[in-house]
Amino acid sequence: MNTLTKKYIETRQRTELLCKHLQVEDYTPQSAVFTSPPKWHIAHVSWFFEEMILKNHVADYKVFNEDFGFLFNSYYNSIGERIERNNRGLLTRPKIETVYEFRAYVDKAMIELLESTTDKDIISLTILGINHEQQHQELLVSDIKYTLSFNPLYPKLYESNYVTNYNKSDDWLKIDEGIYTIGHDSNDFCFDNELGVHRVFLEPFEISNGLVTYADFMAFIKDDGYKKPEYWLDEGWFWISDNKIEHPLYWKNINDQWHHYTLSGLKAIDDNAILTHISFYEASAFAQWKGCRLPTEFEWEVASKQFQWGTHWEWTNSAYLPYPKFKTAEGAVGEYNGKFMINQMVLRGASSATAPGHSRHTYRNFFHPQAQWQFSGIRLAK
Amino acid sequence: MNTLTKKYIETRQRTELLCKHLQVEDYTPQSAVFTSPPKWHIAHVSWFFEEMILKNHVADYKVFNEDFGFLFNSYYNSIGERIERNNRGLLTRPKIETVYEFRAYVDKAMIELLESTTDKDIISLTILGINHEQQHQELLVSDIKYTLSFNPLYPKLYESNYVTNYNKSDDWLKIDEGIYTIGHDSNDFCFDNELGVHRVFLEPFEISNGLVTYADFMAFIKDDGYKKPEYWLDEGWFWISDNKIEHPLYWKNINDQWHHYTLSGLKAIDDNAILTHISFYEASAFAQWKGCRLPTEFEWEVASKQFQWGTHWEWTNSAYLPYPKFKTAEGAVGEYNGKFMINQMVLRGASSATAPGHSRHTYRNFFHPQAQWQFSGIRLAK
Amino acid sequence: MNTLTKKYIETRQRTELLCKHLQVEDYTPQSAVFTSPPKWHIAHVSWFFEEMILKNHVADYKVFNEDFGFLFNSYYNSIGERIERNNRGLLTRPKIETVYEFRAYVDKAMIELLESTTDKDIISLTILGINHEQQHQELLVSDIKYTLSFNPLYPKLYESNYVTNYNKSDDWLKIDEGIYTIGHDSNDFCFDNELGVHRVFLEPFEISNGLVTYADFMAFIKDDGYKKPEYWLDEGWFWISDNKIEHPLYWKNINDQWHHYTLSGLKAIDDNAILTHISFYEASAFAQWKGCRLPTEFEWEVASKQFQWGTHWEWTNSAYLPYPKFKTAEGAVGEYNGKFMINQMVLRGASSATAPGHSRHTYRNFFHPQAQWQFSGIRLAK
Amino acid sequence: MNTLTKKYIETRQRTELLCKHLQVEDYTPQSAVFTSPPKWHIAHVSWFFEEMILKNHVADYKVFNEDFGFLFNSYYNSIGERIERNNRGLLTRPKIETVYEFRAYVDKAMIELLESTTDKDIISLTILGINHEQQHQELLVSDIKYTLSFNPLYPKLYESNYVTNYNKSDDWLKIDEGIYTIGHDSNDFCFDNELGVHRVFLEPFEISNGLVTYADFMAFIKDDGYKKPEYWLDEGWFWISDNKIEHPLYWKNINDQWHHYTLSGLKAIDDNAILTHISFYEASAFAQWKGCRLPTEFEWEVASKQFQWGTHWEWTNSAYLPYPKFKTAEGAVGEYNGKFMINQMVLRGASSATAPGHSRHTYRNFFHPQAQWQFSGIRLAK
Repeated sequence: MNTLTKKYIETRQRTELLCKHLQVEDYTPQSAVFTSPPKWHIAHVSWFFEEMILKNHVADYKVFNEDFGFLFNSYYNSIGERIERNNRGLLTRPKIETVYEFRAYVDKAMIELLESTTDKDIISLTILGINHEQQHQELLVSDIKYTLSFNPLYPKLYESNYVTNYNKSDDWLKIDEGIYTIGHDSNDFCFDNELGVHRVFLEPFEISNGLVTYADFMAFIKDDGYKKPEYWLDEGWFWISDNKIEHPLYWKNINDQWHHYTLSGLKAIDDNAILTHISFYEASAFAQWKGCRLPTEFEWEVASKQFQWGTHWEWTNSAYLPYPKFKTAEGAVGEYNGKFMINQMVLRGASSATAPGHSRHTYRNFFHPQAQWQFSGIRLAK
Repeated sequence: MNTLTKKYIETRQRTELLCKHLQVEDYTPQSAVFTSPPKWHIAHVSWFFEEMILKNHVADYKVFNEDFGFLFNSYYNSIGERIERNNRGLLTRPKIETVYEFRAYVDKAMIELLESTTDKDIISLTILGINHEQQHQELLVSDIKYTLSFNPLYPKLYESNYVTNYNKSDDWLKIDEGIYTIGHDSNDFCFDNELGVHRVFLEPFEISNGLVTYADFMAFIKDDGYKKPEYWLDEGWFWISDNKIEHPLYWKNINDQWHHYTLSGLKAIDDNAILTHISFYEASAFAQWKGCRLPTEFEWEVASKQFQWGTHWEWTNSAYLPYPKFKTAEGAVGEYNGKFMINQMVLRGASSATAPGHSRHTYRNFFHPQAQWQFSGIRLAK
Repeated sequence: MNTLTKKYIETRQRTELLCKHLQVEDYTPQSAVFTSPPKWHIAHVSWFFEEMILKNHVADYKVFNEDFGFLFNSYYNSIGERIERNNRGLLTRPKIETVYEFRAYVDKAMIELLESTTDKDIISLTILGINHEQQHQELLVSDIKYTLSFNPLYPKLYESNYVTNYNKSDDWLKIDEGIYTIGHDSNDFCFDNELGVHRVFLEPFEISNGLVTYADFMAFIKDDGYKKPEYWLDEGWFWISDNKIEHPLYWKNINDQWHHYTLSGLKAIDDNAILTHISFYEASAFAQWKGCRLPTEFEWEVASKQFQWGTHWEWTNSAYLPYPKFKTAEGAVGEYNGKFMINQMVLRGASSATAPGHSRHTYRNFFHPQAQWQFSGIRLAK
Repeated sequence: MNTLTKKYIETRQRTELLCKHLQVEDYTPQSAVFTSPPKWHIAHVSWFFEEMILKNHVADYKVFNEDFGFLFNSYYNSIGERIERNNRGLLTRPKIETVYEFRAYVDKAMIELLESTTDKDIISLTILGINHEQQHQELLVSDIKYTLSFNPLYPKLYESNYVTNYNKSDDWLKIDEGIYTIGHDSNDFCFDNELGVHRVFLEPFEISNGLVTYADFMAFIKDDGYKKPEYWLDEGWFWISDNKIEHPLYWKNINDQWHHYTLSGLKAIDDNAILTHISFYEASAFAQWKGCRLPTEFEWEVASKQFQWGTHWEWTNSAYLPYPKFKTAEGAVGEYNGKFMINQMVLRGASSATAPGHSRHTYRNFFHPQAQWQFSGIRLAK
């Protein structure tokens, strides 16, 4: 079995492993327009392989079910109609069992194909499909957490609570001014948004060696951080006012002790752990309160060679925009990244929910500034 | 086994029979704020027996699960907090299996109690609970149909499609003016909204012997009925405009042939069948177009002794309001009906989805004028 | 000058008198979708005479301005396009001066016509137009009050504050059961919704001789009336919760003294005055709290011969529905009333803002249950 | 009279000149949450001088009216309560005449102060106030145009229609790679968002010498540009779909000829004129269709020394974010710019509606990507 086939199988198995503790009931509902049901995730990543590879590269390939294109297509406007984004949770049929049969059906065809081809297109689309599935693995975890959090029973899904503790350092790294190279520059896989490689000039800056902890953020709350407009971006202030937000997502104060919902249930917050599930608005207000700022994505990319990262997605103060010489691919695959380059902020790094190996210094994640449900954290700069 | 116990068991079994063809996935999602998931329905009707009867009348009764009160309470504001009306579909836990265990647990206690008591309160609350469950049986059917209708696969749930055919009569019944008695007037069970018995004076009127068919309504559509404001109530006109409604719910035109989604799948419409899933707004516009009107609920109650009814809920032109001498019961049970007496219109009769025996001439059903998902139909008056 | 001409002139002058203290700036803005700007009111009532009478009955009549039909048409769907209901406040042009010229232009033609005709259609449409204008006179007052109430300067518009004091009576009138005649039964003008005359049977009832005062309602507030769901209709409860309503419209608590905004500015509330600006939801909750109910419109019509009324519109517990034998007129005039007969409750009586003479025992006013900005009050029944 | 006083007077007079053709009715209404009424603009800029300068620097200064701080404060959260952003159009009082008296009152005090002081704070705040008023002059023009555009009479306000014609050049300027200095670097006034001066590295690029014309954009429409998702950012696609946008703001097709509303009325579009009132979404889709892109704000700043600009605000593909070393001022003035640095895109240049002298190469204007009502245009890069 060749390396790519192995990687393919490994990735597919990891998805199923993540679902091991899901009950049939957990697979279907959708808890917000920005989340998707587990059933949809695991079907959609399979559909990607069928649509982009099998249909085009396997003679006489018979699709598993003609309707699945419509049901499990995502944002690929150029491919055809799709079910409305916020109605995904109403797809009680097909059964989850059938979706797993779909996965197995696709796997069989993919493995056969991968073992018998040297076609460059197939190989590169397969690598893209693997990375696509890894992205959905992380969304699967954050989405199911979001759904379960509405349940007053605080269900426990995993043994691990995805909370990270570490020896915090308060050091600041100093980085010199200069021209730096940004973007992905090797033959390994990367997404189109990491290209093209280009130069940026950075003014000198300092960046924190460690991430903000729960204790740090509690000090902000205690100092009425959520009540003072001067720390907040204007739209952030309206966001917390309109939604009556007074603490981070998943927090609950019980008898004067902060708790939070985790994937292993409701737990008292460990002050020394690293803060997570924070929106850009909150990260920005916290930085303002501290008299600091968030780093740009370029500063992060340059400095990250010198600090530890990977447990939390780190908000940067960079908007998600194309690099110079950015090119969208032809056809449906071209919809992958470019069309989202508006009104979103870049996060760098990776998190404890990221698939192993699915991270690099040049990786650009991105979400709207109000997004809280990702495993995001704060690193300060000045 | 006494009669009440038998009736209790029969009712409980019928609920489960209705769910026989549901897959585990079907139980959880909620498709609209006005519908509830099957899981919620079957738990809620059990909770009613536990909360209203077992907790108060069985010494040392241990509730099945303390959280279920919060999870499966409905509108009973006086009993305590409840889950937000439109978040019911996010309750992936408890598992459906557990909900069935809850049912069995309640059944065991209820049967024991019913076989050993002659307490009037218990008996009357049990009868209320049975009727409550019968109401939810019908909602279960209309709600699951609504959810499945969003699925592009048009799932088939039952053999029966709940569509009714009959020999239509075009006769008009003439009813004389006079003082008539309205309301429930026997020792049998009725809901509080059917009381008190009182007199109304009716001017002479005529009422159709038969219900409107699909063919009748297609003529309205062909005559641009959905495009001419003169037939519509003002709010009805805005409702169809805002929601771009051009035909009844569940209809779909395929190659110039009207089809509709039924519980046995997507079917071509049989012109001679009785029209159903119609809103009050549409019923009212149709009547206006016909140069007729809808009957009042009092006219219906008086005339219904002379025509066949029971296959479709029939919209009346009466708002849902209290009868003279209407009294709400003390405590939580008092929330049953009275507080809904605003902005809703009365439907009389029963439908093919109504539990057997759960119908009478004095029964008052009620929905908002835009409600389409019930098995409703049109009878004209003039 | 004939009587009708005199009545016409008198009505037209009264409208302008009501506007005497308006500044040019006051004429244009619209403060809610359910209100209209003064400019719109005074143009619209003139348009009615032009559109319904002058265009059809005066040879070679030249309309004042072709655009005004579009600008100042209201709900007459059958006549043509109209400006969106909630964009009326953006019509800065024509100038208010021009609208007064339009009024004068219409008046000249109308007076000439009225002095020279005996045509029955013209006479009856003129009477309708006069009554139509009188209705808008009251809306003019309630709408301008609503707009000014948003102004932190609490502008004073009139000397009169439209607040009514009286010697309250706590007596209850007892009315016997029987068949009563309802509806307008003379040759004087009435609206179509007061027809046809018909009989109703009333069970015996009691009705309060006096209206609820501010002191009465403050007792309800003090007893946490706005915080106890058991007094409220379900939709009323959501309405106060969603809108954070804790007291009637225009009230403001300053140093523990209730004040309210009136047309003569912000004033301390006189406890003995009659409560006004109350929604149906609040009226219904208050009645429930008192262990009473609101009368039906039929009870009101029958009993009103025996009590004093006319200072406040009195909410009834009757939905606004057609009487038996109700007929809508042909053409645009037919849109007058019938199409609003859904989701509204009937108010009976008249208010201190009603045009003199524009009231009778059979008059049916109607608003949505959340409407607060009318000069409405509460009379109890039991 | 010193130079600053002259500049102050000149600016104040220009504001009033812009309002010369407004009728009293035009001053009050607000047509969207993102616009303000003329009355509000002219009062607010006066309030700025009173609040920031006169109250602090003139002994015994008596404010014109205590309420005006509340009425005409804008976004200065730190100063105190303010009227809700979308209720500004309900301020029928004070009269416009009074607002002009307020202006004169402030002017008198300001001129006296300016003629008698050398205080640096006063001078720099006055310069800020002048620039602030100049910004509002442009908003005054775009806001009043937006309001009048809702009027079916297409009112003519000015002789000038603010449409710009020019000899279009199709040349592309080539700019070399290199380190460039960005930001304001002189002693003249600039806003805080133009600081600090810093270096950026630019990869080589080409930028168009001319702006996109109406003819250019009509070709995009003819090629179904508004119907093909592949040209649009994802949120742009939803924006045009949800709002049914099929052409730029103010366009109207009459008998197959495109017209647009201008400040001198409805006019046939001159194909050779420069396109304006375009959103970022539309600009981005147009560029995509052309196989080009929009320049970054840094590219624009560097290249703009070599091309003509100043008739239209030019969308860049840069998000509005702080420069390195950006500092917000202490106190209320600090709210000026920084808090808006999210979800907005930078526009560079100036427009025909910009106050003379209120433009420079480093000026950063910014709006949300859906903003259409500004005098914006498109310059392409590649």
